[in-house]
Amino acid sequence: MTRAQQRVRAAYEAIARAGRPEVWITLRDEHDVTAEARQVDARAAAGHALPLAGTLLAVKGNIDVAGLPTTAGCPSYAYRPARDAPAVAALRAAGAIVLGTTAMDQFATGLTGTRSPHGAVASALAPDRIGGGSSSGSAAAVALGLADLALGTDTAGSGRVPAAFQGVVGLKPAPGLIPTEGVVPACASLDCVSVFARTLPEARRALTLLASPTAPPRRPGPWRIAVPPTAQLGELDDGWAAAYEAAARRLAAAGAELRPLDLTPFTETAELLYGGAFVAERYAAVGAFVDRGGPDLDPTVAGIIRAARDIPAHRLAADRERLAVLRGRAAAELGDADALLLPTTPGHPTLAEVAADPVGTSTRLGRFTNSANLLGLCAAAVPGGSVAGRPFGVMLLGPAGTDERIAGIAALLEPPLRLAVVG
Amino acid sequence: MTRAQQRVRAAYEAIARAGRPEVWITLRDEHDVTAEARQVDARAAAGHALPLAGTLLAVKGNIDVAGLPTTAGCPSYAYRPARDAPAVAALRAAGAIVLGTTAMDQFATGLTGTRSPHGAVASALAPDRIGGGSSSGSAAAVALGLADLALGTDTAGSGRVPAAFQGVVGLKPAPGLIPTEGVVPACASLDCVSVFARTLPEARRALTLLASPTAPPRRPGPWRIAVPPTAQLGELDDGWAAAYEAAARRLAAAGAELRPLDLTPFTETAELLYGGAFVAERYAAVGAFVDRGGPDLDPTVAGIIRAARDIPAHRLAADRERLAVLRGRAAAELGDADALLLPTTPGHPTLAEVAADPVGTSTRLGRFTNSANLLGLCAAAVPGGSVAGRPFGVMLLGPAGTDERIAGIAALLEPPLRLAVVG
Repeated sequence: MTRAQQRVRAAYEAIARAGRPEVWITLRDEHDVTAEARQVDARAAAGHALPLAGTLLAVKGNIDVAGLPTTAGCPSYAYRPARDAPAVAALRAAGAIVLGTTAMDQFATGLTGTRSPHGAVASALAPDRIGGGSSSGSAAAVALGLADLALGTDTAGSGRVPAAFQGVVGLKPAPGLIPTEGVVPACASLDCVSVFARTLPEARRALTLLASPTAPPRRPGPWRIAVPPTAQLGELDDGWAAAYEAAARRLAAAGAELRPLDLTPFTETAELLYGGAFVAERYAAVGAFVDRGGPDLDPTVAGIIRAARDIPAHRLAADRERLAVLRGRAAAELGDADALLLPTTPGHPTLAEVAADPVGTSTRLGRFTNSANLLGLCAAAVPGGSVAGRPFGVMLLGPAGTDERIAGIAALLEPPLRLAVVG
Repeated sequence: MTRAQQRVRAAYEAIARAGRPEVWITLRDEHDVTAEARQVDARAAAGHALPLAGTLLAVKGNIDVAGLPTTAGCPSYAYRPARDAPAVAALRAAGAIVLGTTAMDQFATGLTGTRSPHGAVASALAPDRIGGGSSSGSAAAVALGLADLALGTDTAGSGRVPAAFQGVVGLKPAPGLIPTEGVVPACASLDCVSVFARTLPEARRALTLLASPTAPPRRPGPWRIAVPPTAQLGELDDGWAAAYEAAARRLAAAGAELRPLDLTPFTETAELLYGGAFVAERYAAVGAFVDRGGPDLDPTVAGIIRAARDIPAHRLAADRERLAVLRGRAAAELGDADALLLPTTPGHPTLAEVAADPVGTSTRLGRFTNSANLLGLCAAAVPGGSVAGRPFGVMLLGPAGTDERIAGIAALLEPPLRLAVVG
């Protein structure tokens, strides 16, 4: 067996050993994947430059992989695309090998990883807690070592919240940089394709194959990191504030200049996503399907999408006007800061807490992530330490196109110790 | 009296002579205007460079002029702004003198110039026919020689249709180039400030003071003008097709290369504006006011705005998605053409025809103008000849930022004879 084939064999052994079938929607037949690996090995042997040769890739279930059903977490919605989505095609062209499609909050509606007819995906590091969503299976596959790299999507935080809860890296460019062709829309104007990897270098390498961001020039000097007063973060889980402040201190210790920022425009923008009319885009995307009903519809997801049917268009228009104002205020707050540092989430609920209050817990989880796509920012969500032995994730938000810059800053955040995977 | 004061005196004499009070919403007291002229003369005498010194300016009634009521054609809506809108301020800084605010289709809703509690504005060149709107008074003031320059706004064609019917020039940059601060919104995401003048050089000079467009580079060679098959223009007034084809021939005779274009994506985009959900932006802007009712609401305008209240947001979201597709198709059709040549309107209705069918006639008028702002194009509407002794207007549409380029092409369209003003 050649190198990529050996990696495939090892992956299927690991997948069997892990005993986490809920991570996948469609795990491909090993023989098919081995055949794909053989082709990669042959291309590499023929001298093709394949920066991802043999990299094992998991793809969120709302992104087209040629020949596999795209279900978006709802089997009765499935269609079987003839072509890979451009993001999948780009990684495959670089030598990545697709293992299958991964579990997700249905129609990418939710941040918990529990809103799926296939069952909940728990955190690999805290099994009584949620793994986060909506890209739940993608983050878990990477965290459990079943895949090297995974594609997710991110509208409200779906490419970042599961990174935080699984202790992996999630990178998300500004909307529009990676094509969303071949992706089942959530809120079409805000959806982004995102990447998960265990390390920043792996995630950054994948991102460079997917997007060509153009960073605005920066004023010379040390990194300038905007840090809101902890009181503006609102109610947090125990230990969260201390972990956040420790992350900020690590950046300062690494030479970054910390500066205060008023988080209000970011918080008000975040509230527009769930509290405003943008959710009507979800009805535009899959409302007609949801209205017809189906035995495998998640009741929470179906409820959210159906409720979006009657939102009036003038409210959406007014929200867009308000967003334009908030964008100006947020940009003014950022000024020439390179990034805004935030916890990725306000806390980490248990599976039981989410089951008891499916909507409230998910809404709370988006408090810091919800604003990024509305404001056209890029984001890097990275492990940022731990709280009571559980993973604590931090996030850097930067202007569109500064993906490499914020990833470089995120590298300074490497926590003092890495948590072991306890899958 | 110095030069600007003399011009003001002459203007007030012309205004009295014209006997067209319906052109104005607020005509300023001559003493106030004379005082403003005196200041302009003093600034010029002090050596200030004032490219518009003494230029008499009329401002559409939905654009803020400090101290005058902004009514948007509805007196009970009025507010009295403390500051000029940026577009007014820029022209005043260059030496223009504001005569007053001009009549308009109420809330800039309509293309006829008849939807106003102040009465209809007729064409200066064909008194039984409409003057066009919604910037009806601005175009008329210029056509009648009462002002040198006028500001209008353009959402569906309000800066171009009245130019066509009054035999003047109307220039409209792509949305976003001239700030719309201090303008009562119609469809806020599409509204543009526009300029009217009797000649292209005057209009171009004003535009350069208002916007700094960046034109994309062009492939060298003769002007490339896209011209759809006349059959795709749909039903036209008698003589309209021949006048349009003659305009195209004039461009060819001047050295331009004509090339065919499929108008379908432009026509389908145009239909989105009135037939789709974008009209909900009008409700977002003034719906609450209209719902409260008022004796001076135009019944047609109020009906359109009230009907927009119940359009669902998911339709607006779907229309935006569809627009994104149409933008791609329209750009592909344009290719590297410098401009698309179209009649400004499909015909020129009489005042009686509009009174008999206020909505149908106005909708028809926007067939060629409606797509420009949705597609992010700039436009130049210029006199393009005559049909049965009445003005025929043609329009050039170009990519955002090519205002100077399409104005240069429009200059080649100078009709063989200029119609005399018969105000």
